[in-house]
Amino acid sequence: MQAAAAAVRHPRLFPPSRPAPRGTSAHPAPLRLLACHRSAGKRLAFEDREYTVQDLAAPGAFDGVDIALFSAGGSVSRKYGPAAVARGAVVVDNSSAFRMDPEVPLVIPEVSPEAMGNVRLGQGAIVANPNCSTIICLMAATPLHRHAKVLRMVVSTYQAASGAGAAAMEELKLQTQEVLEGEGANTQYFQTAGCSGLQIEYAFNIFSHNAPVLENGYNEEEMKMVKETRKFWNDKDVKVTATCIRVPVMRAHAESVNLQFEKPLDEKTNWLCLCCSIILRGAPGVTIIDDRASNRFPTPLEVSDKDDVAVGRIRLDLSLDDNRGLDIFVCGDQIRKGAALNAVQIAEMLLK
Amino acid sequence: MQAAAAAVRHPRLFPPSRPAPRGTSAHPAPLRLLACHRSAGKRLAFEDREYTVQDLAAPGAFDGVDIALFSAGGSVSRKYGPAAVARGAVVVDNSSAFRMDPEVPLVIPEVSPEAMGNVRLGQGAIVANPNCSTIICLMAATPLHRHAKVLRMVVSTYQAASGAGAAAMEELKLQTQEVLEGEGANTQYFQTAGCSGLQIEYAFNIFSHNAPVLENGYNEEEMKMVKETRKFWNDKDVKVTATCIRVPVMRAHAESVNLQFEKPLDEKTNWLCLCCSIILRGAPGVTIIDDRASNRFPTPLEVSDKDDVAVGRIRLDLSLDDNRGLDIFVCGDQIRKGAALNAVQIAEMLLK
Repeated sequence: MQAAAAAVRHPRLFPPSRPAPRGTSAHPAPLRLLACHRSAGKRLAFEDREYTVQDLAAPGAFDGVDIALFSAGGSVSRKYGPAAVARGAVVVDNSSAFRMDPEVPLVIPEVSPEAMGNVRLGQGAIVANPNCSTIICLMAATPLHRHAKVLRMVVSTYQAASGAGAAAMEELKLQTQEVLEGEGANTQYFQTAGCSGLQIEYAFNIFSHNAPVLENGYNEEEMKMVKETRKFWNDKDVKVTATCIRVPVMRAHAESVNLQFEKPLDEKTNWLCLCCSIILRGAPGVTIIDDRASNRFPTPLEVSDKDDVAVGRIRLDLSLDDNRGLDIFVCGDQIRKGAALNAVQIAEMLLK
Repeated sequence: MQAAAAAVRHPRLFPPSRPAPRGTSAHPAPLRLLACHRSAGKRLAFEDREYTVQDLAAPGAFDGVDIALFSAGGSVSRKYGPAAVARGAVVVDNSSAFRMDPEVPLVIPEVSPEAMGNVRLGQGAIVANPNCSTIICLMAATPLHRHAKVLRMVVSTYQAASGAGAAAMEELKLQTQEVLEGEGANTQYFQTAGCSGLQIEYAFNIFSHNAPVLENGYNEEEMKMVKETRKFWNDKDVKVTATCIRVPVMRAHAESVNLQFEKPLDEKTNWLCLCCSIILRGAPGVTIIDDRASNRFPTPLEVSDKDDVAVGRIRLDLSLDDNRGLDIFVCGDQIRKGAALNAVQIAEMLLK
């Protein structure tokens, strides 16, 4: 379904593994599914009910909606988000449209509940989900930042097909089949921008993220990590560089993150234990997988379809003096914590 | 063939794409293939001739050998390398056995021919090939280092199956087939170290490099990059940190490399153009693929079976002041430049 936006009156849009509070029977239609006119009329099942998809552009589409979860790209959010807000809805937007708007909170509920500020149910507002790579990185980096202040962060990503949507996942699967059968790989989705004759083969290959490349040489995905981290930490001085790479993995992202801290920790402090045991082990939504003896660390497959972000390869960075650096490796489900789950958690916060 | 060592009397061990100078007919057997007793007696074809594999441990195995290319792991190199040297051969060793030995040159011919020092044909000696990830990184980083002195390097790798050998490549292929056919993935090769019950699924997955993890939290592959870079640049102060990750790619490695330089470049210097145009474009064995408009950058598939290392995503690092940092993305064929080609190039240097 293209251009879909889901409007919720009651918190029923939770994955089956997260039991939803039972709504009262006074509201016969707590969930409303909205999409563009091409999808309007389709019937979709959720939990024990079927719903008819309604036209997003119809008059009154957002009437009576408390929370509108938008997940249809920037242009749809820009066009219909303000209409929902005008009707009193709180829009939880998964696109990049409003993320850098100084009036819009950028929220990862586990690590920045305070960023919600004065947003309340019934008072129209927009709340933005950060970019998936940013969320997964900051789930682990934020608790460490609060402890020792991150001055600089160097990130290299290993991003799954799901970040580019269902068509990309299907292309990865089909192309891999073709290559294994000895056929030439058929590339539809990942044609390089601006050069239709050139195609990127995804099967058994990795490539620079398909987002457009800007004048400074960074692509848009990388600049989201740079800018959103600054906004999220409310620290315009934090230095971030990122290299975003697509890998042939279905639905979970991984990131190699190098952190440089302000605080020089004295020798007595066992910084590594401190990080693991106190900071990260206590961080909500974070699981540590860091078994050096058996070489067992997070993998995208292991976190797929899981809510928690997994952190491992936690070690003092040999290249920085005074125990000021840390290398970590983070994996998180791009569809869950990188997108849908984070939006649902924001909705849950509003309902508390 | 396990435990194989090839001994060369004439430069005939060149890939077909690199035409070998025709040897004189005065040497009827310019190439000798050596391996453990299990493989002795096998017949192997090379170019227009068949060779019988001989027993490495047989008396006189290295008699009359000028150059011995060892590619059979550290224990074989340690056991038989000195025997070859005692017979006057120059051993070009692809294992890690002698790399950090201060008496042994660590050579990448394009960027450090001078490291060969006094090694001459006919005077027994050992020359070491660096680790594959190190070679691929330093092919691009060394020309930049010579220009502006690298102070610190943060590397994240995307390593192919080939680095773990033919069995790993076969496992990736078979496992991927199994997963696409809806079967459970059968893991034989990548069982995690020290914990036989635990297995790493490779199909559509990435994972921390399978080398043993040391007490400092780095794995052996990462420490090779740290130590070999210091030795190669003859700079014990250069700071390196690396995170080595295996990706489901067949035979070429990729690396995201962040470089921090000593020289603060003045504003008038167009550092980026300088890097691209003068330094890297002039670097032997390096191809630049850096087309921002069409989002075309190096990929492992594109450099597979190629000699050159490809460099792209060349951009000023936003997170460092004074134009002191650069982000690059490097890809190189792990079997060619990361191993066999580099050894053959060292042999060619000896024959000049």
